[in-house]
Amino acid sequence: MAVHKFTPSMYHNTLGWHDAVLEIDPGDTVVTTTVDARGQDHMGERVTQRGNPQTGPFFIRGAEAGDALVVRLDELKPNRSWGFTACAVAPNVLDPGYRSVFTDDLSDCPTFDGAPFFRWAVDVAAGTTHLTEPERPLSGLRLPLDPMVGCFGVAPAGGQAISTSTSSHHGGNMDYRGFRQGTTVYFPVSAPGALFHIGDGHAVQGDGEIVGTGVEVSFDVRFTVDLIKGSSVRWPRAQDDTWLMTVGNARPLDQCVQHATTEMLNWLQTDFGLEARTAHQLLGQAVAYDVGNVFDPAYTMVCKVRRAYVEALR
Amino acid sequence: MAVHKFTPSMYHNTLGWHDAVLEIDPGDTVVTTTVDARGQDHMGERVTQRGNPQTGPFFIRGAEAGDALVVRLDELKPNRSWGFTACAVAPNVLDPGYRSVFTDDLSDCPTFDGAPFFRWAVDVAAGTTHLTEPERPLSGLRLPLDPMVGCFGVAPAGGQAISTSTSSHHGGNMDYRGFRQGTTVYFPVSAPGALFHIGDGHAVQGDGEIVGTGVEVSFDVRFTVDLIKGSSVRWPRAQDDTWLMTVGNARPLDQCVQHATTEMLNWLQTDFGLEARTAHQLLGQAVAYDVGNVFDPAYTMVCKVRRAYVEALR
Amino acid sequence: MAVHKFTPSMYHNTLGWHDAVLEIDPGDTVVTTTVDARGQDHMGERVTQRGNPQTGPFFIRGAEAGDALVVRLDELKPNRSWGFTACAVAPNVLDPGYRSVFTDDLSDCPTFDGAPFFRWAVDVAAGTTHLTEPERPLSGLRLPLDPMVGCFGVAPAGGQAISTSTSSHHGGNMDYRGFRQGTTVYFPVSAPGALFHIGDGHAVQGDGEIVGTGVEVSFDVRFTVDLIKGSSVRWPRAQDDTWLMTVGNARPLDQCVQHATTEMLNWLQTDFGLEARTAHQLLGQAVAYDVGNVFDPAYTMVCKVRRAYVEALR
Amino acid sequence: MAVHKFTPSMYHNTLGWHDAVLEIDPGDTVVTTTVDARGQDHMGERVTQRGNPQTGPFFIRGAEAGDALVVRLDELKPNRSWGFTACAVAPNVLDPGYRSVFTDDLSDCPTFDGAPFFRWAVDVAAGTTHLTEPERPLSGLRLPLDPMVGCFGVAPAGGQAISTSTSSHHGGNMDYRGFRQGTTVYFPVSAPGALFHIGDGHAVQGDGEIVGTGVEVSFDVRFTVDLIKGSSVRWPRAQDDTWLMTVGNARPLDQCVQHATTEMLNWLQTDFGLEARTAHQLLGQAVAYDVGNVFDPAYTMVCKVRRAYVEALR
Repeated sequence: MAVHKFTPSMYHNTLGWHDAVLEIDPGDTVVTTTVDARGQDHMGERVTQRGNPQTGPFFIRGAEAGDALVVRLDELKPNRSWGFTACAVAPNVLDPGYRSVFTDDLSDCPTFDGAPFFRWAVDVAAGTTHLTEPERPLSGLRLPLDPMVGCFGVAPAGGQAISTSTSSHHGGNMDYRGFRQGTTVYFPVSAPGALFHIGDGHAVQGDGEIVGTGVEVSFDVRFTVDLIKGSSVRWPRAQDDTWLMTVGNARPLDQCVQHATTEMLNWLQTDFGLEARTAHQLLGQAVAYDVGNVFDPAYTMVCKVRRAYVEALR
Repeated sequence: MAVHKFTPSMYHNTLGWHDAVLEIDPGDTVVTTTVDARGQDHMGERVTQRGNPQTGPFFIRGAEAGDALVVRLDELKPNRSWGFTACAVAPNVLDPGYRSVFTDDLSDCPTFDGAPFFRWAVDVAAGTTHLTEPERPLSGLRLPLDPMVGCFGVAPAGGQAISTSTSSHHGGNMDYRGFRQGTTVYFPVSAPGALFHIGDGHAVQGDGEIVGTGVEVSFDVRFTVDLIKGSSVRWPRAQDDTWLMTVGNARPLDQCVQHATTEMLNWLQTDFGLEARTAHQLLGQAVAYDVGNVFDPAYTMVCKVRRAYVEALR
Repeated sequence: MAVHKFTPSMYHNTLGWHDAVLEIDPGDTVVTTTVDARGQDHMGERVTQRGNPQTGPFFIRGAEAGDALVVRLDELKPNRSWGFTACAVAPNVLDPGYRSVFTDDLSDCPTFDGAPFFRWAVDVAAGTTHLTEPERPLSGLRLPLDPMVGCFGVAPAGGQAISTSTSSHHGGNMDYRGFRQGTTVYFPVSAPGALFHIGDGHAVQGDGEIVGTGVEVSFDVRFTVDLIKGSSVRWPRAQDDTWLMTVGNARPLDQCVQHATTEMLNWLQTDFGLEARTAHQLLGQAVAYDVGNVFDPAYTMVCKVRRAYVEALR
Repeated sequence: MAVHKFTPSMYHNTLGWHDAVLEIDPGDTVVTTTVDARGQDHMGERVTQRGNPQTGPFFIRGAEAGDALVVRLDELKPNRSWGFTACAVAPNVLDPGYRSVFTDDLSDCPTFDGAPFFRWAVDVAAGTTHLTEPERPLSGLRLPLDPMVGCFGVAPAGGQAISTSTSSHHGGNMDYRGFRQGTTVYFPVSAPGALFHIGDGHAVQGDGEIVGTGVEVSFDVRFTVDLIKGSSVRWPRAQDDTWLMTVGNARPLDQCVQHATTEMLNWLQTDFGLEARTAHQLLGQAVAYDVGNVFDPAYTMVCKVRRAYVEALR
């Protein structure tokens, strides 16, 4: 049950079978930091290349293919006073051929690698975020902070190294708002040691990350790992105080629904002992779906059911 | 502002350019009933053929192509003490080739047209519903009632008559849980008089209607209509106390997202006066998506944003 | 085996349960004409409203729900010397956000309802078509004529009337190049008399109708009908000298593949007597797919297998 | 213009930034071999693990990110007398919930890793292949050989290593029948040296690889490479004597169509000098689409246009 304080000195832009930065045991806690999606740290220094750079990977002793890695997100806290967003809704979530007519001028925007972006204040004490640069009508609107991790997961199967711009069985860039502080996440292990990666913090984000960013920030992170040997987990699963959640990552969203719903049926039967008919009937009248990322090559959909209902049926 | 009490004597299984059953004025209220998805009324009598039979259509005087019909769902109340559900999650929302292994026996189920179904008690006074026949582990679970209308809308464009088993611009079988009492819905008018149809009440339903039914009941219905002349509405829109909602009906879900998000951008700009950049930025960090029907030929996705945010920006 | 010469005086923009224009018997032949997609006849006169107007419907005596209507396309001949095309590839078949930069000026184009179009010479004697107005680099290229019918089919199930801009089980706007002279097509009958509609001739067309038009012309048409009582046809089927073809109409194309392939497996087993394993193995190594319409709300994909292979296995 | 004879001693199951097995120059030819999808060589010996093992990668001197690697498939020849196929059409290409009822018994099938398969004779001299084990009605049908490479390509962008069971910008498991002897293929280079991989030979295959295999064989392979510096290639392109081809790899097939069609428009304009309008109009009336793999996580669609048409317009 050790607590490891880890200060990253390099980052990865793929989730893969990379050399571990730290070996830990099931039950251990890691206190570390993540840089923002552009590789900027808590000081705003650009310390690595852009593209959801990942802290890690962490090697969990005893983890083998066929196990599930359990990660409790103990703390996800923005560690600087500003974030940034992109400027427009992505064309892939708008009707083909639809073109917004923007009447404003982006020349007063800050830029990064030559492209304009919007800058937001992130006020952890007040629990809010709002647009600061450039000043726009939106600047007056304070949104409640709801910090979440956009991209995290384990090394994918078969020795693959998969870009942090997409997602699959192993997790990756799922951009799901439910991956917030207090949530416990389960990943299917493929590589020895599981090789857990984490990065891409958002101070807040709309469903789907439809502008291609949340309010992108660097984070102070604390997480605790555990291991389930010989698990039935095939897609990421999660739970918080209220919900059981299963995640499908694919395209189109219909396929995400298929993966997430099948995984939920399996979870309810294998781990909670519900008979098949009960699981089907329960989902029929009580399932909920949330939308994760709809910006990347793979989209994300989450299937949810209330823990209280499942507990009542065990 | 008349109140019309209307007792239906026939029903339609398409939304189309049918002869109106009643002519009403903008501002008028209609008090009527709907039968359940199988054509059974408040007494459980089968009074018409199955397939989401529709009460109506109602002709709204003054409505022309290019207008929006406004329908406030004043009351949606189950008017009998039982409903029914189907028995299994549909294969189109499960992984291709996945087969649930049901260990129970459906021979103790009630049947309809030879097929087994499940029967639920609908207790309006207690505000709950639960499985009664056949007795199963799920029978002990009381779900809170959340009545909603599954299928409603106006006559589609170009003289079409479209089955109540699907949906499009005109509405139809959207099975969205947000279409509950108190919600106001906007439909694009194509036919003279708009020709409003309504049916397919659910006492409760999981997202997506993934077993192909909610808890299917007959309803006492009260709704009030209004008209927006020369509207920008192209897809169904709605609002309740908290949310603005736009609806996309298509396949795959990705295309629903495109329709609903584009419609929301148009609504925010045309009707609420937000400039394009503000609308994009607001959605980026504050949009939410809900899943409607994922069972029918056309699926449904809903794009939402909080009214309070939009009001603050006008 | 009568031959009916029929001169249309009105047209439909939906395929539906419309009053029949002519009653015929199985075995009969109809000689008639179709107008082009904009309602222009062999003289170029606009005789009805745009949108793939249909000649018919024809009532085939004895046809009932559950039968298959057999239509042999005896002749499909452009009956005037010009056609027209739209000007650009549709955004739904290009990458989201992709914008072609057109450097030419369309002010020298002919117009229709205010929109520019391109005019092509249709030379039936020479068997070619080429762009004539406006003069462009493409004008020098003569394409071989390959006349085909874009939109045809029967009345859809359940009393529906479905726009000629889309397709489903009943046929409709499939824009498949294989629907050419000499091909025999099978449609599932839903309405008494089947109610066969036909229109939307193309002198030639690229796969998918990706600019939204072929070279659109009016046609002289001759077809012969027959009936299969109690058929297994659920989706349009066809055959020519070389191929057996089954058609899936839906979105996305993946779903078209599912419908068409399932229909082919059923056809091979039910009508040609192949055992399931043989049908699967044959398709595995010998199936071919063609793309029909990828422009409309519903797309079209065709599954094919060589008749010679199937005959060898009977 | 050297000819390198290369005998592989190990294989990869990902396309990635692996150590090169051989460095060659643009203009050089490589003569080598590939094992079948299960890692079996020309003797039928299992020499590596299953899953489309790749020969290579080959490092092409001078190749840098932003270039195009040109690979001419000089020879693709089955180098043993038998191949194998899987036994059933995959559920993802059949209607959800559809179940074939197989009446035969697979106990007389050969097995591999415990699973039954079908064995085919591959007769290069006669130019045919047919089922040999187990004897089935299909055994009497001789299919013409049409050897093609199922999986090949270059190292993907950003240091990724992507499984040979899928495809993307870099190529991969596209299973396109047009990748036969005589075809020249262009890949976008991401890694220094391009890192070309090749494997997964099929003696013949139906469109889509819908049973999950072609007739899987080991190959004698000869290919010649070249380099285009500073190329516009973003997706695989190809040409043979008749066609220009562009490839989109994604899901759903609609997205493949978008990638392939956009790539073709770019190719016609950037490399063949057609103005945008001409390119659009040409595709509108002359484009053809072929279906590649519809079995894997990413599907494949090919956009084609006749070289003769394009040459006439330059």
